[in-house]
Amino acid sequence: MANTDITLADILKVGEEDAQYLVSLIRSVPNFPKEGILFRDFMPVFADARALQILMRALEAALPVPADDIDAVAGLEARGFLFGPALAAHLGKGFVAVRKAGKLPPETVSESYSLEYGEATIEVESDAIKPGERVLIVDDLIATGGSAKAARQLVTACGGTVAGFSFVMELEGLDGIAELGDYPTSSLLRMPA
Amino acid sequence: MANTDITLADILKVGEEDAQYLVSLIRSVPNFPKEGILFRDFMPVFADARALQILMRALEAALPVPADDIDAVAGLEARGFLFGPALAAHLGKGFVAVRKAGKLPPETVSESYSLEYGEATIEVESDAIKPGERVLIVDDLIATGGSAKAARQLVTACGGTVAGFSFVMELEGLDGIAELGDYPTSSLLRMPA
Repeated sequence: MANTDITLADILKVGEEDAQYLVSLIRSVPNFPKEGILFRDFMPVFADARALQILMRALEAALPVPADDIDAVAGLEARGFLFGPALAAHLGKGFVAVRKAGKLPPETVSESYSLEYGEATIEVESDAIKPGERVLIVDDLIATGGSAKAARQLVTACGGTVAGFSFVMELEGLDGIAELGDYPTSSLLRMPA
Repeated sequence: MANTDITLADILKVGEEDAQYLVSLIRSVPNFPKEGILFRDFMPVFADARALQILMRALEAALPVPADDIDAVAGLEARGFLFGPALAAHLGKGFVAVRKAGKLPPETVSESYSLEYGEATIEVESDAIKPGERVLIVDDLIATGGSAKAARQLVTACGGTVAGFSFVMELEGLDGIAELGDYPTSSLLRMPA
């Protein structure tokens, strides 16, 4: 399946040829993980040396705020780990791991949010974010925004400030970005939910 | 608790002052995740901008084989994701995500291995590794080597060759490295199990 339903947005900051190359590697897999879901698989982007470079450059080019206004990058387990630390290292910032409940030793700060069925809890180590630190939250995908909102709460609960949000993919029509509130936000790609 | 029981090994390639700084940020947490386990928490290393730079430099300085002899880096979910893609991007290689079962869309190649209680299964996408590719396997920790051996099997099952293994921490006395077979291996730090 071609990726003609994917809208290039902030990724165009690296140039159209590179943007198209990266998008050509995203696989659209029908009915995964369950019937009716069109799964967007961007693991082939990571597996390709050129596309990985483009992705990293695009994330940096599309930062929703200047790098000088960011003290740390926070990323959500597990797919946010794939590019969050790389982005943080490239910017010369620290990386705050937002993990699923039970993975981090005490003391932690937790936040729960609703899933389609049930609830999920995410955590950070309570001293991972210093009071006043400006934190960029990154994740691979924003759909309804539940996990990103929970991450925002975690940053605030630790005394930090949310500098903005950076996503690789945004699902259209779910109002996830609007749910986050009034923060600088970028998403490299947009696609139908 | 001071980290005097941690042996600096390959991390000294970045210099003793930087090595000591990084080690000073590793937290040793008794009785996590269960009674009797001394958990080594290196999330504070990621959260610190300077230590993250040192870690990335150390991983590259301690590569068990020349970068030219590596075609791709493979890292295990979730903590191998924290530095694998960053290392791959820095070396100009692709990154192969080794995920827990059920996370990747078909087609996948799977491998199971024994845990203390029960069994775990890891997977890669079957086309993530091209035949003949030389793959460096990275993970945060090697204990008995079960997951690293399973990753080795996955690489081989996809037609790739294991170029070597790179770990941040090695638990002493468990013979994990010996279990892997005759491959070039590096571990930045060693500590008692």
